[in-house]
Amino acid sequence: MKIIDSISRMSVLIKILKKEGKSIGFVPTMGYLHEGHLSLVRTAKKHTDVVAMSIFVNPIQFDRREDLEKYPRDFKHDEGLARDAGVDIIFYPSVKDMYPDGYSTYVNVEGLTDYLCGSSRPGHFKGVTTVVAKLFGIVKPDIAYFGQKDAQQAIVIKRMATDLNMDIEIKILPIIREKDGLAMSSRNINLSEPERKDAAVLFQALKKAEALVKEGERDAKKIIRQMEAMIKGKETAKIDYISIVDTKDLKPMSTVLSEALVALAVFFGKTRLIDNIIVKA
Amino acid sequence: MKIIDSISRMSVLIKILKKEGKSIGFVPTMGYLHEGHLSLVRTAKKHTDVVAMSIFVNPIQFDRREDLEKYPRDFKHDEGLARDAGVDIIFYPSVKDMYPDGYSTYVNVEGLTDYLCGSSRPGHFKGVTTVVAKLFGIVKPDIAYFGQKDAQQAIVIKRMATDLNMDIEIKILPIIREKDGLAMSSRNINLSEPERKDAAVLFQALKKAEALVKEGERDAKKIIRQMEAMIKGKETAKIDYISIVDTKDLKPMSTVLSEALVALAVFFGKTRLIDNIIVKA
Repeated sequence: MKIIDSISRMSVLIKILKKEGKSIGFVPTMGYLHEGHLSLVRTAKKHTDVVAMSIFVNPIQFDRREDLEKYPRDFKHDEGLARDAGVDIIFYPSVKDMYPDGYSTYVNVEGLTDYLCGSSRPGHFKGVTTVVAKLFGIVKPDIAYFGQKDAQQAIVIKRMATDLNMDIEIKILPIIREKDGLAMSSRNINLSEPERKDAAVLFQALKKAEALVKEGERDAKKIIRQMEAMIKGKETAKIDYISIVDTKDLKPMSTVLSEALVALAVFFGKTRLIDNIIVKA
Repeated sequence: MKIIDSISRMSVLIKILKKEGKSIGFVPTMGYLHEGHLSLVRTAKKHTDVVAMSIFVNPIQFDRREDLEKYPRDFKHDEGLARDAGVDIIFYPSVKDMYPDGYSTYVNVEGLTDYLCGSSRPGHFKGVTTVVAKLFGIVKPDIAYFGQKDAQQAIVIKRMATDLNMDIEIKILPIIREKDGLAMSSRNINLSEPERKDAAVLFQALKKAEALVKEGERDAKKIIRQMEAMIKGKETAKIDYISIVDTKDLKPMSTVLSEALVALAVFFGKTRLIDNIIVKA
């Protein structure tokens, strides 16, 4: 496994791989790897000749400085996990290399980023699409892999890749969960013991929404109210949002028709977690 | 010469050329070709194996609907000129193919677009950088060619390509002028006879600025005042802006030190023309 910590050296390596006709699978991460990331790697290995993973905590996608500073990092541990999962190249650039003095260019997906996390974290998705556009420029993957946990991010990145004619296939893979249903996230490490216990309610609330729809409930407000009641029952939980939206344009639905994305963001103490489920009416 | 009018067919062709190891030179245009465009083609032919030219009047870079509607078009004539200059591929997509329903992604270079044309044409550069990012995604050139006439556009696109790690060399070639010094522009066709005569003053004013700097004048305001006086002497002229700015960050200079860009935009009747010169103190 190669570890490349500069853009210029990564570009040289990618040029060689392209010349050799190798297909490139790409898993962009912010590190502190968990089974969610590793499942992306394992799938990428089945599809492509070379799997590149980036580890870069992208400062411009954090709306709160505190969140950026607290974001967990452990490169040595990540390196071991990546190697075991079969990553061929770790791309690990510095902030200064990615955003040198005079940096000025931003990619933004309008509309889709007005809802859900976009309204509670202004500027977040602009930071995400910008860094992903840069990483795509450097790594030039044939296929890039993202997790369904960041449902809105997945939709926004697909839109960006299509709109900017990037000629990169975007694959979205299922959420990987802990035994009690909590979606795996690098942020889970920041939870205290009681917060960690309470956080299991998120998946229970999402399963409740799924069950209600299965039973015939179509009123989004009623579904959300029941989810709210469950989450508010946990002492350390503070709801950021619970929304039921169209899976394509992310616009809020008042009546659940066909396919809907039930998505939520909830603080447990200072840690903000997100999760979601797709339900079919 | 191939004429390709769909993105999907262009992508197939580019993939074949890349596989054959051909280098691609790219000249993006809005058509109504003149010697300025053709000089880009002739240079591209010296550097690269295949020269692709796009002809696309990009609606999202026009701030005034009238300007978009009046923008001159003559594909048949362009086709002949392109063929004679040695273009290998004309890429001629439709608006619907470039911006289908649901289109949402925009690329923006912040800061650099606050000055000069950016302040008098809000949204213009966002439209330019977005379409160029798309065209780069489709055509995947090794080198792309732009004219110095659009000085700010050239600087903004260089910035975008660097910032987004596009791995495309951006070459900026000199302004091509008519005998009386008027910079070649597709818009010149919209000038009435008296407007066309008056428009020669632009180059005279720029040469005046150059001469003043050569004589030792360093006060930007004084230089601009003399240019204004010359242009205001023409009946059909109405100044949009005259600015002396830093060639790197485009910030206005009050004192001309080292290298400066003297840039102007002037309406003759309803037609807005731009021109510029680089002066060295």
